[in-house]
Amino acid sequence: MSHRRYIVALGQLGPIAREEPRASAVARLCAMLEEAAKRGARLIVFPELALTSFFPRWYMDGPAEIDAWFETEMPNAAVQPLFDLSADLGIAFHLGYAEKTPEGRYFNTAIFVENGVIVGKYRKIHLPGHRQNEEWRAFQHLEKRYFEKGDLGFPVFDGADGRLGMCICNDRRWPETWRMLGLGGAELVMLGYNTPQHYPPAPEHDHLQHFHNALSLQAGAYQNGLWVVAAAKAGREEGCDLIGGSCIVAPTGEIVASAATVADEVVTAMVDLDRCAEIRANIFNFAAHREPGDYGLITAPKG
Amino acid sequence: MSHRRYIVALGQLGPIAREEPRASAVARLCAMLEEAAKRGARLIVFPELALTSFFPRWYMDGPAEIDAWFETEMPNAAVQPLFDLSADLGIAFHLGYAEKTPEGRYFNTAIFVENGVIVGKYRKIHLPGHRQNEEWRAFQHLEKRYFEKGDLGFPVFDGADGRLGMCICNDRRWPETWRMLGLGGAELVMLGYNTPQHYPPAPEHDHLQHFHNALSLQAGAYQNGLWVVAAAKAGREEGCDLIGGSCIVAPTGEIVASAATVADEVVTAMVDLDRCAEIRANIFNFAAHREPGDYGLITAPKG
Repeated sequence: MSHRRYIVALGQLGPIAREEPRASAVARLCAMLEEAAKRGARLIVFPELALTSFFPRWYMDGPAEIDAWFETEMPNAAVQPLFDLSADLGIAFHLGYAEKTPEGRYFNTAIFVENGVIVGKYRKIHLPGHRQNEEWRAFQHLEKRYFEKGDLGFPVFDGADGRLGMCICNDRRWPETWRMLGLGGAELVMLGYNTPQHYPPAPEHDHLQHFHNALSLQAGAYQNGLWVVAAAKAGREEGCDLIGGSCIVAPTGEIVASAATVADEVVTAMVDLDRCAEIRANIFNFAAHREPGDYGLITAPKG
Repeated sequence: MSHRRYIVALGQLGPIAREEPRASAVARLCAMLEEAAKRGARLIVFPELALTSFFPRWYMDGPAEIDAWFETEMPNAAVQPLFDLSADLGIAFHLGYAEKTPEGRYFNTAIFVENGVIVGKYRKIHLPGHRQNEEWRAFQHLEKRYFEKGDLGFPVFDGADGRLGMCICNDRRWPETWRMLGLGGAELVMLGYNTPQHYPPAPEHDHLQHFHNALSLQAGAYQNGLWVVAAAKAGREEGCDLIGGSCIVAPTGEIVASAATVADEVVTAMVDLDRCAEIRANIFNFAAHREPGDYGLITAPKG
């Protein structure tokens, strides 16, 4: 029996200051990539919007002010050192960033880069938060204002000797995300997140943020029989506490490695992509047991 | 602000012997219903196939032998005492049983009975297991042989001052089940299960049965913002160990009460149906955040 076993890493980021330049963030990512390579990792997963502070917490009106947070090319001069180091050390990476296209469209995007080439790209579909300034909040969550819904679906692509998928932050709470990736054949899903400890619309759930993060990742892994590598931006960033809890989850739903800080931290684990079959050939054998004819409401247009 | 708060119960069953008559099982259910009523419960949830031993573990060929496990009327003489006691004490109940229709169709069925009337009915959609005798197994799991897939969809109905839904055993592992019920507006989902500790096709996961049970229930509750009342048939039944782990789960995904035995046991908790809105008006506000146009594979016919 073949086994596609290798070490994977995640690079959790501590806070990035509002004024911190891209070059500084990239240097931190490079340091973690180097550490992961030393530990023998084949790939490393970095968080959502890993090049800047989590800017959707601020209301901004002017296009110039907004555009400053977006990348118009990838790689660009600031990020090139990460691409170069990755190629030199032979370790792939997943990176989240804010993307402005040549057509002037704005997305919350993730890429997977292997051998210096972008082999996978995803644009966030489940945008949380709101569109207008809501001054009653301690901080804003304006993803629906700054980003357009992703237009690439939930792609599954070849990489790292397997079939890979991506999702971003709030996507992980939605079982539809995981099922789309599972039905697409993903064996390992990479994702980054920026999750505040405080959720202004329902602060009575603030103490449950870590539980809900783990629950969503573990259910997604188990119910689709795939590995999950999830990297947080963590710690007190510009007065806003972000949860850590970065972790690697097996296709059984078991957390096999997790971060122990809310700072820059590399976490590694051995994965075996062939273990996906333990779940997908049995309890979640989609061909044998799913009943799509009974799921009509799930794809019905919103009323 | 209104609050629809009341006590709910589950009645976990210990093993039922192969030769145990319906009257004996019904007497055990009646005793638990009475206990739940004493604790002030408005409803009690009994397990899947609560009137008999879990017969899909045995291969049977002859229609007479198979038919002996099925109810052709509900209520019937054996079950009437449960209906009567429920009406007398003013406590509703959920009951799972094997149903043979007048047309000769066979289903794994659950009903909800309030004021002596069957106000909700569900027939299991996700039938696990296999169709043919597989002698290598320590025991069979022939649900696909003995039951037809349910033909009622995932109904949501009025009861107990709220909107109620049901699913059965293996249904709970499938996020589609919960999403169909959530989209239907269910505020409280009742379910029973018979889950062997040993899973013959992947025994390397046997130690995870309790974890997978809780994970599925908690994710379903959280991702749809609904209460879950889940009742096991538990303990060593005819040489087969069934997990217990019966529990009541809040819309936050928190387990608020759980069984502490693998025997007949009543578990109660206070629920508040109005708490569903904490989740469904915010993080899982379906109207604001779902993207059904991107979920196409989920309802695509199986290839």
